Amino acid sequence: MALIVQKYGGTSVANLDQIRKVAERVIKVYTAGNDVVVVLSAMAGVTDSLIQLAHQITNDPSRRELDVLLATGEQTTVSLLSIMLESMGFPAISLLGHQAEIVTNRAFGRARIAEIRADRIRELLSQRKIVAVAGFQGRDQQGNITTLGRGGSDTSAVALAAALKADVCEIFTDVDGVYTTDPSLCKNARKLDKIYYDEMLEMASLGAKVLQIRAVEFAKKFNVPVHVRSSFIEEEGTMVVEEEEDMERLVVSGVTYSKDEARITLSKVPDKPGIASRIFTTIAEAGIIVDMIIQNTRKGGLTDLTFTVPKSDYPRAMAIQKDVAESIGAEHVIGDEHIAKVSVIGVGMRSHSGVAAKMFTVLAKENINIMMISTSEIKISCVIEEKYTELAVRVLHHAFGLDA
Amino acid sequence: MALIVQKYGGTSVANLDQIRKVAERVIKVYTAGNDVVVVLSAMAGVTDSLIQLAHQITNDPSRRELDVLLATGEQTTVSLLSIMLESMGFPAISLLGHQAEIVTNRAFGRARIAEIRADRIRELLSQRKIVAVAGFQGRDQQGNITTLGRGGSDTSAVALAAALKADVCEIFTDVDGVYTTDPSLCKNARKLDKIYYDEMLEMASLGAKVLQIRAVEFAKKFNVPVHVRSSFIEEEGTMVVEEEEDMERLVVSGVTYSKDEARITLSKVPDKPGIASRIFTTIAEAGIIVDMIIQNTRKGGLTDLTFTVPKSDYPRAMAIQKDVAESIGAEHVIGDEHIAKVSVIGVGMRSHSGVAAKMFTVLAKENINIMMISTSEIKISCVIEEKYTELAVRVLHHAFGLDA
Repeated sequence: MALIVQKYGGTSVANLDQIRKVAERVIKVYTAGNDVVVVLSAMAGVTDSLIQLAHQITNDPSRRELDVLLATGEQTTVSLLSIMLESMGFPAISLLGHQAEIVTNRAFGRARIAEIRADRIRELLSQRKIVAVAGFQGRDQQGNITTLGRGGSDTSAVALAAALKADVCEIFTDVDGVYTTDPSLCKNARKLDKIYYDEMLEMASLGAKVLQIRAVEFAKKFNVPVHVRSSFIEEEGTMVVEEEEDMERLVVSGVTYSKDEARITLSKVPDKPGIASRIFTTIAEAGIIVDMIIQNTRKGGLTDLTFTVPKSDYPRAMAIQKDVAESIGAEHVIGDEHIAKVSVIGVGMRSHSGVAAKMFTVLAKENINIMMISTSEIKISCVIEEKYTELAVRVLHHAFGLDA
Repeated sequence: MALIVQKYGGTSVANLDQIRKVAERVIKVYTAGNDVVVVLSAMAGVTDSLIQLAHQITNDPSRRELDVLLATGEQTTVSLLSIMLESMGFPAISLLGHQAEIVTNRAFGRARIAEIRADRIRELLSQRKIVAVAGFQGRDQQGNITTLGRGGSDTSAVALAAALKADVCEIFTDVDGVYTTDPSLCKNARKLDKIYYDEMLEMASLGAKVLQIRAVEFAKKFNVPVHVRSSFIEEEGTMVVEEEEDMERLVVSGVTYSKDEARITLSKVPDKPGIASRIFTTIAEAGIIVDMIIQNTRKGGLTDLTFTVPKSDYPRAMAIQKDVAESIGAEHVIGDEHIAKVSVIGVGMRSHSGVAAKMFTVLAKENINIMMISTSEIKISCVIEEKYTELAVRVLHHAFGLDA
């Protein structure tokens, strides 16, 4: 018999009918003899409604108080699920973040879990209770309520699974697993039975839709097996696990894309020490996160500097760079919002050469120009013109043997 | 400068506009240099909606879990008020029941406050924070969330005022004070400037509408001055205070009535030891609360026993008594739902004789027959025919000099 942590997202607890289905699912696992901890999100839309309510008062609500307000969302769902389970004859108990002793730092709205003292949960499980824990929330050392930020319930679940040394953390969501690429874009996309933590982390742009990146980091750190699966069907989803020897595995596990970035080029920048620092310090001070950076040396002590920023920060970043360009004597600032980043990901790259070359060849064959390249140990990303995104994803998916 | 506890009920925090008005009222008191603790109820209707939601799952929801659910109501209002106050530039902090260390017993849904450790609130006040405390809720020794039952926020406020040794506990409500009688029934009803704890307790039927009886008991026990006033106007309301020498005071402070009871008579009951015990044990075992009891001895070892029960329990009580009557050999069981209880209340009765006589005379003059009488040290109640209620209240109000 196993100790299983299950997490259900907002769409899985959107109303009492859904909550009843969650209860039935929980009971099935419980009556099979397993210990079950259930982590819940707020009902779909509730967190957003509460944020809107606070914003009707002020654009900048007190972060501490906003967390107190938001914490009601999960408080509602865990009590309703417990009422449901008890009414069906099963011993259930809800625990809020502070009751489950999910201790975080004091960064309201984006708190990090520092510690989970799981003694109370362990004791309740030993009494054969089904423990329903409010996700997304914790408390700081002083007992203030904190929340973990968007999708924080995934992190709550994985962290609880780690603290309890659970056999598995099941993340129930509205998709049935992790795919080789976005199925809405590539009809040959295939559900993966298994994916490694590092791959999942690199698949941020795909993965974030099914599993919070911070939850994956946590899972990796504490080696928690995570099962991403659908709350609407019985079929198994995708296991996110530690890397292992696996001869049969393909070199590339997935193809991802992102249209959320824009590109800025400062051309003919004097190639002197301190210039790059000047450019990126200014932009960092504005709180804008730079993703890729490329520098091309020209003749005559000049250089071109190209980087990408989130599309939402693009107008601000352009304005800043125009000032910077003037002050450092750069010739132009050129911006481009119509770009996309296409990536191939796979731990197999660690032991297989030629993946990058193959990627470039495949794109070249379709006449897709590569504007920027960046690589990590298990990922190669190319920035291309936005209009080629779908084509690029499809041809790469096919070329790397991922098609269903 | 004073320490003031203010409590606002559900209609006073029904929406953001109302909450803004509460904030303005709090700020006025705060900027005058006072320390302010604000106790809030849930938005009007929210607690009922949550109860309904739970009852959509089951008729008998887990009491522990229902309390977790209900506690979200006040959590919402205290966080919203704190966001509002902070957005207006005032330092505010919300505390939930467990954060304010309102420790109760474990009677979920009707918990009693055992202790308030007010250290944290005192410290926050010393930092000149406005402290917004969630009413109605507390925690037991194990950290489970509890609620205090209907109107529990009044009790929270008075208990906090007692623990903090506040100068006054202001109860803001939708009426502007305590009246000599129900104004909707008697146009000459007058708002009282002052009423004593004991009178307020006896005025349950009037008082419960403006102030929870348990809160009054608490106030009396710890001698907390309570100011019942309207949240919609500035004018002062009614002070509920400790009894004092007050020569000018009228003997009677108020006239109350209740139509919530029904009368049951067992006639020709054998007058033997143990019979009354038999009758009232059966009814107590059914969880029915008996208010007045009268026994009239007849000739021939027979007696008539008359008592009143809540109208809602009347059908059940009649059924039970018919069985009992048969088994003890009583002749009839006669019921009457069309009765009312009219009472005159005043601590002045302790030192003035003749109040009862005057009451009976006044009623007799209107040809109102008195069916039952009960008295306490400061109250005289008569059961009369329901149709005479309004008339009785008006003539008594006039006769005891209460008319405006």
